[in-house]
Amino acid sequence: MSTFNVAVVPGDGIGVEVTAQAVRVLEKVLAGQDLQLTYFDLGADRYLRTGEILTDTDEEALSKHQAILLGAVGDPRVAPGILERGLLLKLRFDFDQYVNLRPSKYYAGVDSPLKAPEGTDMVVVREGTEGLYVGNGGVIRVGTPGEIATEVSMNTALGVERVVRYAFDLAESRERKKLTLVHKTNVLVHAGKLWQRYVNEISAEYPRVEVDYSHIDAATIYLVKDPQRFDVIVTDNLFGDIITDEAGAITGGIGLAASANLNPTGTFPSMFEPVHGSAPDIAGRGIADPIAAIGSVELLLANNGYGEQAARVGAAIEEDMKWRASNGSPQRTTVEVGDAILALLD
Amino acid sequence: MSTFNVAVVPGDGIGVEVTAQAVRVLEKVLAGQDLQLTYFDLGADRYLRTGEILTDTDEEALSKHQAILLGAVGDPRVAPGILERGLLLKLRFDFDQYVNLRPSKYYAGVDSPLKAPEGTDMVVVREGTEGLYVGNGGVIRVGTPGEIATEVSMNTALGVERVVRYAFDLAESRERKKLTLVHKTNVLVHAGKLWQRYVNEISAEYPRVEVDYSHIDAATIYLVKDPQRFDVIVTDNLFGDIITDEAGAITGGIGLAASANLNPTGTFPSMFEPVHGSAPDIAGRGIADPIAAIGSVELLLANNGYGEQAARVGAAIEEDMKWRASNGSPQRTTVEVGDAILALLD
Ligand SMILES: CC(C)[C@H](C(=O)O)[C@@H](O)C(=O)O
Ligand SMILES: CC(C)[C@H](C(=O)O)[C@@H](O)C(=O)O
Repeated sequence: MSTFNVAVVPGDGIGVEVTAQAVRVLEKVLAGQDLQLTYFDLGADRYLRTGEILTDTDEEALSKHQAILLGAVGDPRVAPGILERGLLLKLRFDFDQYVNLRPSKYYAGVDSPLKAPEGTDMVVVREGTEGLYVGNGGVIRVGTPGEIATEVSMNTALGVERVVRYAFDLAESRERKKLTLVHKTNVLVHAGKLWQRYVNEISAEYPRVEVDYSHIDAATIYLVKDPQRFDVIVTDNLFGDIITDEAGAITGGIGLAASANLNPTGTFPSMFEPVHGSAPDIAGRGIADPIAAIGSVELLLANNGYGEQAARVGAAIEEDMKWRASNGSPQRTTVEVGDAILALLD
Repeated sequence: MSTFNVAVVPGDGIGVEVTAQAVRVLEKVLAGQDLQLTYFDLGADRYLRTGEILTDTDEEALSKHQAILLGAVGDPRVAPGILERGLLLKLRFDFDQYVNLRPSKYYAGVDSPLKAPEGTDMVVVREGTEGLYVGNGGVIRVGTPGEIATEVSMNTALGVERVVRYAFDLAESRERKKLTLVHKTNVLVHAGKLWQRYVNEISAEYPRVEVDYSHIDAATIYLVKDPQRFDVIVTDNLFGDIITDEAGAITGGIGLAASANLNPTGTFPSMFEPVHGSAPDIAGRGIADPIAAIGSVELLLANNGYGEQAARVGAAIEEDMKWRASNGSPQRTTVEVGDAILALLD
């Protein structure tokens, strides 16, 4: 039996609390397997104590694992952006996690701000290593009336092709087999043409996948008026960031949304994390819903050869969602939700 | 009595139909004034006939007017982006229309995809002449596996300061006096710092305006979960494009949304247009709702010294909205809606 090495980064705030439950679930479904968990002290506390965010040694150690389970990072004592860029985005980039996978599925009975969320079941394939997230750009004449600040979106054939290909594969594996490119090709013509070209080209290899296009602005409308139209969306890093938050909100809140940062080639580990943040406002009270972190365990299992175990976790989440719906979604503690999922896995 | 010169650009598709009603409204409320309308043949037909989109002569002629009333541009026979960039965006840029003003107000009884849209009443002040819309960027190795495409967002102190100042003025003039900057400062640090700096600085001059910040991804969530939290939003060109479509959708559809592209200095004319497009699918059938075009007339009046007339048009729109709500929003023709508004202006 080969060892399954998972790096655990609880992070900050509720990240720590939800990760504890996610780990219980992981240990339960992999009972009898040689699961090795290594905890990493990364996030606000260490940064404030030592000034370190993510050292080369940390990255070297993380890279030896088959997967990373991350809670959330961010803390009011640290300026916004520092931990996000120094830790979260750095890992996505350095470990070449080019597929940021974000499913949004509406479970009957879940509270949604929409009148008609029923039937929403989509996955956003967000590019994770390019676009406006590269940190390219700069400023001149800072702080003066002559200041100019630029941000450069970088899009490469290599980067676009591989993520579009992944999205086609995913679309083909799903029942509806529909792929929508979301972009703003009428304004961002350079990048737009590159994205559209690869979608067109690769589409020829997937005759069974129906291909569609939506401008990002129109996509935000469809998400509230007709979210059922979407099956798989492929889009760039920033548009994906925006649209997955909206998709999370309409299906019951990003508190429920799981995500995977995949390096499908396996040269570096993939990373699994809830879409929500560290939620300083409710941290430490033991009331955060761990379901998004548990959903991230499902994705972790599915993407590491544990398809059967992933399906069991998925079924337990679905059961718990049904239970919530028929019991008026009572407030439960983080541990109580973990207990419930564990019981469903018996 | 001085002449009020308005350039009318009906454009394409339903643009032509809704503009006809908007013009009736304009003529009615300005009866007795010296209103001079000059029609401009711009859009798909002329482009297909002559290859011309917007000549220097056209721009010179347009620039002699005090305001431009635009219907919509875009046509299935023309590749996406050509007319948008060659006409709409070119006018916004060349006429330095740096304030793209987009109110979103929920009228009771209007059909919204949200369960709780009541009380939504916000205005987005979208920057109109910078950001990712500048067309800066390029490609190398086009069409090869080595292709790299860039898009550059340009943000200047001049451009940011003036639009932020406008937004503070607007916020101060409104009841709630709240201003929210929407950006992505944790990732787009260069541009983000510039925007945040001007918001902080100018805020000192407006002690009565409450200032807030939201990341663009979080803003798309708030718009569906708690749109009432927003009063005035100030944001860049692309984020504004995205968020105003979503704001339009939750308050009843962008079919109702009016907008102004303002050059507040008056060096060039401002332009008033519905947020919706030319809607080729329903064009020519006389069923497009002209209310967004009529709302654009309200903005045109308000921004050209006809505050009283603007208020009358606004009241008529509000009346018509109430009528819709209490009559089950029956399908009416474009002309019938125009007739109804005209009757309300009697
Ligand atoms: C925290 C932030 C940098 C991050 C992003 O923008 O990618 C987050 O919003 C997300 O979607 O994972
Ligand atoms: C047509 C398009 C170029 C335009 C934009 O992106 O600004 C439109 O979406 C708008 O919001 O007015």
